[in-house]
Amino acid sequence: MKGDAAAKAADYANYFCSYAELYHQKQMLMDHNRMRAYHDAIMLNRGMFENKVVLDVGTGSGVLAIWAAKAGAARVIAVEFTDMANHARALVEANDLSGVVEVVQSSVEDLDLADTKVDIIISEWMGYFLLRESMVDSLIRARNRWMKPGGTLFPSHATMLWGAITYEDDRREKQDEYQNSMRDWDIFLREMKETYDVNMAVLNTPYEKEQKEYYIYSSLWTELGPQHAVGRPSVVKTIDLNTCTITDAADVPKVAYDLTIPYNARVSGFAGWFTVDFSGSKESPVSQRVVLTTGPEGGSTHWGQQVFYLPAPIDATPDTRVHGEFTMKRQKKNQRLYQVDLTVTVDDEKEPRCVGSYEMP
Amino acid sequence: MKGDAAAKAADYANYFCSYAELYHQKQMLMDHNRMRAYHDAIMLNRGMFENKVVLDVGTGSGVLAIWAAKAGAARVIAVEFTDMANHARALVEANDLSGVVEVVQSSVEDLDLADTKVDIIISEWMGYFLLRESMVDSLIRARNRWMKPGGTLFPSHATMLWGAITYEDDRREKQDEYQNSMRDWDIFLREMKETYDVNMAVLNTPYEKEQKEYYIYSSLWTELGPQHAVGRPSVVKTIDLNTCTITDAADVPKVAYDLTIPYNARVSGFAGWFTVDFSGSKESPVSQRVVLTTGPEGGSTHWGQQVFYLPAPIDATPDTRVHGEFTMKRQKKNQRLYQVDLTVTVDDEKEPRCVGSYEMP
Repeated sequence: MKGDAAAKAADYANYFCSYAELYHQKQMLMDHNRMRAYHDAIMLNRGMFENKVVLDVGTGSGVLAIWAAKAGAARVIAVEFTDMANHARALVEANDLSGVVEVVQSSVEDLDLADTKVDIIISEWMGYFLLRESMVDSLIRARNRWMKPGGTLFPSHATMLWGAITYEDDRREKQDEYQNSMRDWDIFLREMKETYDVNMAVLNTPYEKEQKEYYIYSSLWTELGPQHAVGRPSVVKTIDLNTCTITDAADVPKVAYDLTIPYNARVSGFAGWFTVDFSGSKESPVSQRVVLTTGPEGGSTHWGQQVFYLPAPIDATPDTRVHGEFTMKRQKKNQRLYQVDLTVTVDDEKEPRCVGSYEMP
Repeated sequence: MKGDAAAKAADYANYFCSYAELYHQKQMLMDHNRMRAYHDAIMLNRGMFENKVVLDVGTGSGVLAIWAAKAGAARVIAVEFTDMANHARALVEANDLSGVVEVVQSSVEDLDLADTKVDIIISEWMGYFLLRESMVDSLIRARNRWMKPGGTLFPSHATMLWGAITYEDDRREKQDEYQNSMRDWDIFLREMKETYDVNMAVLNTPYEKEQKEYYIYSSLWTELGPQHAVGRPSVVKTIDLNTCTITDAADVPKVAYDLTIPYNARVSGFAGWFTVDFSGSKESPVSQRVVLTTGPEGGSTHWGQQVFYLPAPIDATPDTRVHGEFTMKRQKKNQRLYQVDLTVTVDDEKEPRCVGSYEMP
């Protein structure tokens, strides 16, 4: 067996299974900020869909494909890898759109549309902090292979944001969990020695490292509100989905960020989130631009925010600068997951307050 | 890529990862009923280990291998697939047993011991309701390949038990969750129609099926106490690990069970659990037999019990018979997981009260 094939098989088994559940589809369909943005983007720009050929990458239950058809598309090809394709097909039929929407059960990579080319690719491919799940690779492959020159993607642009937050209750809770876990370990060590005659102390350091990685150096899915954001976020990445390469969209190479804290605040750490724009492309601009934001100010979405807590908070006063370098790359052990490497410096201090590598689970 | 190789790669990625965490090892090492049984079985039968060659299948952090060495084994080969092997090696060294215990990082299937044969195979391979995880396949392969004639396994025998339980609070809670989920679905349907102009009613039946499978026809890990057990359990399977084939130990072909309820009780469903015996083999019997039980009467273990609730309870009076057929087989989509097919008849009633297929997640 070739290593690549084995990795692909393991990846598919892990990645796709939850998308085959109606319960999971329902959760995404009840995310009204998500729904409202896609629905508006399509329905406010019907002119772009009328008599066009549309491809929906990862159609799930088929709702985006149905909207594209309702907006006047001549033909919609809706691709779905999981058995959810059967439900999508039933839904298309029940909504009297079988003549327009064709559901194809396939991976994007194995899709065969003969010499069909499409005018628009719609897709809801975004993961936590935009890149998690790495589905964008398949989207770009679909675009390179099947989109007409001058076509566009819905959404067309993506922006990744990085902002300071204050949320000491939550940060301290994680710290307490870590401390409790290490106290439990001490009890465990004593029991292992006294009851079972095995000295486990040699594992102290690896256990501490494992627990620190779990409780401190892991980002957390969190639903923040406007009260948690401190000042304005930095942009760490923008992607033009009409033109980017797979490499462009795969990660965030080392980038400087610089946040100014506008008032007295205890900075607990950072949050990462994204926005996507439905702007069209240079050749095919939309008539009405729509933006979907997943930030603390934008109300609830199923994406929430990814939160990265500092080991110790920063007590900021007006105009304190919190700055450093941000890198986000795919995990070696699982290409659909990411890690974020961070340095955090306050004002002109010589030593950074934190140099850490966080897993995004 | 061959289908088998792909399936193996996917399986390994899913199965082994949690065993690479010290936190998970610690949970098993703090299961004192488990620990006490293995420790006693080895230490009360030192005579069997003295100057012998021992193989530990799936050694994890290496504790069973260390005990075998302390019991006097001449050589212990401790096989571990995950990187936990490194920690096991460190632990062996720190306990001054490097001369006796050799940690080998390998799957059982790829293990190469040249012409070494072993006297005893120790292993803690048991999953929920004994068979979950299907690790017994690897154990039997190790036995067939590396055990001397007349050797034995620790543990040597396993028994699967099936008993009636009463736990209406918990059963009703699952029922309520199911009802709530279906009410949410109705709200969702209305919203999808009114807000987004998509009629989802065609998915009613598949959604109901999915939710029933999740809330009703799935077994649950539960920690039962003696107060939940009603009457005596039926034995649904016994395995002699010294002599069984992989096929023997893979599942439970259709078997009749017959439970007599000894007093007035509302039967909520059933629980499945197991015991293992450290009895040795015919040629190598232990001097002191040890039994590890994971039943509701035996105190807490990390295995808990698997609980299978009935859609409606049975009101039993003294000597009510609850009987039927029990089948447990591997899931097609994941060979490490099981499903249990059940018929449940009360006394001489013509119609069974329940005919159901339960997933064990």
